[in-house]
Amino acid sequence: MHAAAFIQDLAVIMLVAGMVTILFHRMKQPVVLGYILAGLILGPHTPPFSLVHDNHTIEILAELGIVFLMFSLGLEFSLRKLRAVGATAVVAASVEIIVMVWLGYEIGSHFGWKPMDSIFLGAMLAISSTTIIVKALDELNMKHERFAQMIFGVLIVEDILGIGIIALLSGIAATGHVSTMDAAITISNLTLFMVVALVLGIIFVPKLLEYVASFKRDEMLLITILGLCFGFCLLVMKLDYSIALGAFMIGAIMAESRRIRAIERLIMPIRDMFSAIFFVAIGLMLDPAIIIEHAKPVMVVIVAIIFGKIFACTLGTMAAGNDGRTSLRVGMGLSQIGEFSFIIASLGLTLGVTSSFLYPIAVAASVITTLTTPYLIKAADPLSNKLARNLPGKISQFFRLYRNWLDSNSHAPDSDGAILAGIYRKLLLQVFVNLCMVSALCLGAVWLANDYLVSRPSPMRDIMWQQALIWGTSLLLAAPFLIAAFRKLQSLGLLLADHSTQGMTGSDCSRVQRFIAKTVNVLAIVSMTLLVLTLSHKIMPALDVRVVALLIIAGLVSLLWRWFVMLHYRMQITLIETLTQDKEEH
Amino acid sequence: MHAAAFIQDLAVIMLVAGMVTILFHRMKQPVVLGYILAGLILGPHTPPFSLVHDNHTIEILAELGIVFLMFSLGLEFSLRKLRAVGATAVVAASVEIIVMVWLGYEIGSHFGWKPMDSIFLGAMLAISSTTIIVKALDELNMKHERFAQMIFGVLIVEDILGIGIIALLSGIAATGHVSTMDAAITISNLTLFMVVALVLGIIFVPKLLEYVASFKRDEMLLITILGLCFGFCLLVMKLDYSIALGAFMIGAIMAESRRIRAIERLIMPIRDMFSAIFFVAIGLMLDPAIIIEHAKPVMVVIVAIIFGKIFACTLGTMAAGNDGRTSLRVGMGLSQIGEFSFIIASLGLTLGVTSSFLYPIAVAASVITTLTTPYLIKAADPLSNKLARNLPGKISQFFRLYRNWLDSNSHAPDSDGAILAGIYRKLLLQVFVNLCMVSALCLGAVWLANDYLVSRPSPMRDIMWQQALIWGTSLLLAAPFLIAAFRKLQSLGLLLADHSTQGMTGSDCSRVQRFIAKTVNVLAIVSMTLLVLTLSHKIMPALDVRVVALLIIAGLVSLLWRWFVMLHYRMQITLIETLTQDKEEH
Repeated sequence: MHAAAFIQDLAVIMLVAGMVTILFHRMKQPVVLGYILAGLILGPHTPPFSLVHDNHTIEILAELGIVFLMFSLGLEFSLRKLRAVGATAVVAASVEIIVMVWLGYEIGSHFGWKPMDSIFLGAMLAISSTTIIVKALDELNMKHERFAQMIFGVLIVEDILGIGIIALLSGIAATGHVSTMDAAITISNLTLFMVVALVLGIIFVPKLLEYVASFKRDEMLLITILGLCFGFCLLVMKLDYSIALGAFMIGAIMAESRRIRAIERLIMPIRDMFSAIFFVAIGLMLDPAIIIEHAKPVMVVIVAIIFGKIFACTLGTMAAGNDGRTSLRVGMGLSQIGEFSFIIASLGLTLGVTSSFLYPIAVAASVITTLTTPYLIKAADPLSNKLARNLPGKISQFFRLYRNWLDSNSHAPDSDGAILAGIYRKLLLQVFVNLCMVSALCLGAVWLANDYLVSRPSPMRDIMWQQALIWGTSLLLAAPFLIAAFRKLQSLGLLLADHSTQGMTGSDCSRVQRFIAKTVNVLAIVSMTLLVLTLSHKIMPALDVRVVALLIIAGLVSLLWRWFVMLHYRMQITLIETLTQDKEEH
Repeated sequence: MHAAAFIQDLAVIMLVAGMVTILFHRMKQPVVLGYILAGLILGPHTPPFSLVHDNHTIEILAELGIVFLMFSLGLEFSLRKLRAVGATAVVAASVEIIVMVWLGYEIGSHFGWKPMDSIFLGAMLAISSTTIIVKALDELNMKHERFAQMIFGVLIVEDILGIGIIALLSGIAATGHVSTMDAAITISNLTLFMVVALVLGIIFVPKLLEYVASFKRDEMLLITILGLCFGFCLLVMKLDYSIALGAFMIGAIMAESRRIRAIERLIMPIRDMFSAIFFVAIGLMLDPAIIIEHAKPVMVVIVAIIFGKIFACTLGTMAAGNDGRTSLRVGMGLSQIGEFSFIIASLGLTLGVTSSFLYPIAVAASVITTLTTPYLIKAADPLSNKLARNLPGKISQFFRLYRNWLDSNSHAPDSDGAILAGIYRKLLLQVFVNLCMVSALCLGAVWLANDYLVSRPSPMRDIMWQQALIWGTSLLLAAPFLIAAFRKLQSLGLLLADHSTQGMTGSDCSRVQRFIAKTVNVLAIVSMTLLVLTLSHKIMPALDVRVVALLIIAGLVSLLWRWFVMLHYRMQITLIETLTQDKEEH
């Protein structure tokens, strides 16, 4: 009768959560706080008694809450949006995260915590809470003001950087220390994985969803969405990344589907149910005694969040060229922590590298800063007026000069140059994406030959030939992307040649042009060969085998050249079509 | 890292379920079969290997699947619909269930199974599958034909009777044997509970949902719905009824809410997710070896389901006055088993009273009869034509006479009589509902005084006075319902007096009228007093205390009489308004 105990737990959780939501809504407080309070009441650390029995299953459901929270965060994200938010968001988010991670680390060190705790504290303070901000702006009726749009932009960039932080933290936790080399490898692996997964995902997933949606059966669409979501999470977990990353990425991929409205409609109730359990579970784990014991760090952390974020975000927004009033409003809107901090805290606990007091501190800080958020947003305007009046002349003059300089800069490039820069950027991006695909194929082949097949019985006795086969196949599969990258580099060379000889005339000009174009071609071939060799050298067959294999591949490639170009072209078309198509309205 | 194992299980389940849904949809087979097959593939009983690790958690989620399946079955049910489906549905469903339970029991006995297995087999065969039928009729494009509407009516009545069967089975499993007395007590307890819960639920729940929905926040509405659903399930479990009953009843209560469309929209994705897990879990538990071992009973059960249901439902539909062709179509549409059978089978396993082979037999029978359903529906028309041609003259003459007799009967009552019968029925229903409330109050008081308070420390030393207080309070609370019941019986008496002296005139008439009315009044008071005394005699105080208590109550009642009448009137108005209001369209 274990299921009965579980149903009882769920009943108690949902009943109390339901009552508390209504209460908190009446008191105009965020519902999230209500959930945490409900968990605290039900939890084992507060009287009268523990009302929840099957903690284990509740924790598993809370884990599902993380999956669905991150998944719907991904659904709201989109590559198009990312491009639209522009420089302000990137600068502000980067400044904020750097300042806050540093601040958190310093606070931890000051209190004599072990380095891993300090690092995790820094990460927890870095990212603001989308849930809380949306709620606060909604209630203040400010969602459509300009500073609110900028805040949403910052939040989107924060989500991406937060995903990076989660991956980095997993890496740091695994090696036990921070090294630049490890971080670089982690980040480049992560980038490679994200590019490949996004490209393949955006090519195939929206097509599949479109196909399933055409049956017009909500149940099938939902089960397919869930299958893709959990399947991708599984893949990500097998690659030793966190499940939060996987859920966010597959959400971002599905965000490019034409059926995004239908997907959101189906996923929203499930997300609400599990995220309620997630927040209640946070309250369940909360031991007030620990918070009282660590009252001093909690206070310091709260002060650091409020003033650190106001300072960092205001500065970052200003640095991107916005006026002081807007910048202050952005800064004061972002000064709190929330669900991302809980996810990072629970990551630390799951990996077993952080102390148990970190979680309650994060929760306490989140609760307090959530409560202050609406007041801070409201206080931004009066404060900026006051500041403007009392600012020393020199400082305000500096800001005026800075803005003038930025303005003059942003208007500087003529439109021809801007178009050219756009073409360069596009070509380089395409080369980068294609080389990512090549790299992934090479690394995949190495993993297949060295880690996977070695451990299984194989009909092919000779490991040598097996490796050669895998190596050859991976090269053959990589060929379309190598060809595409080469062709883009060729275009780049021609463009470069044309561009850099703009002043010249006559035969001199065409000679220089030819020379530049050739050099770029040779450089492209050499560097691409080097890339493939470096990545796949572990499974490269002996010289004689290699020659045979290369000859076969060369023959096949020359035979299939046109087909490869067509295939690649069609994949590219699909990708671009998916990214630019209109979404279905609901 | 237990959560990781669980996420992996869920990923595998959802991924395979997603693929199989698409496949089965392409093959035009019900998705439910696909889920079961997916479970079978993933399960421990089939090669290559078991892909699911955390069976325990999956089973708990499957239990949630039952809750949400029954809840949404309840949402689709409504008291108004029940009244509309009329006599055909009631007669056909009753005949079907009686025949099938008997048939199942006989089959079990024939194979020498223990009585409890045979009883559960009977119950499993009794109820057809809404899911499968809706799917089949949908695909055959016959959903709006008359026989399909009749099938839906039968399914609604089956749901109710099925709920009764589940409650009865729980009772039988607890006592270990079937006795008429026990069954009568179980059924009357169940009826009492259902009437009281429905009345109170319909008075309060839609009002609460309306209030929460007025905030226009889907999340709050969802959490409130889930809180009510699980909270009610918890209450039902505490009363030793099954969770399936609770989920169905709270669904039926919420079906009376004006916001039923919004509720369905929010609950549907959650139901689809968990019911997919539920059906996959059925496949997981399925051991093909057991089915092969019990091949003979499986065959017999399948034959019994198909021919038994066709026979019983056709007969029942005909007995309610429908023509042979429609009846045959109804019968052939209902000849399968599905989710209800699985719920009953898992009830038997949970209670630990049935053998483990019962579940696989039910699943195998369901799979086969699901596959035959669309063919049977399509075969109904040709078969009825063939039967009509080949039927011996005597039998067809009998049917003609029977229909003529039914027709003459149904036109017999003049419209005055019909109106009068309607008024009588309504008054009796009101008396019944009010007396149910009184009974519930008395039984609740007995439970409070005898079972609950006795086991706790109490500030009142004297158990005597405590009991007297509870007894008095319960009587006071019962007073509005007693008053209402008495007033309805008074009206009934006057009506009866008027009706039975229709032929008479003069003083004789009015004397007889007064006599009848008085007799009814006296009978009402005596029987209501007896009811209260019988139900609460266990906590009735000693004579002296009783007299004092009764005097106080009498004083309070006479003081509050008008207020009591008003209160009861307002509750009744709320109830009727809720039942007759228009639902919000979406």
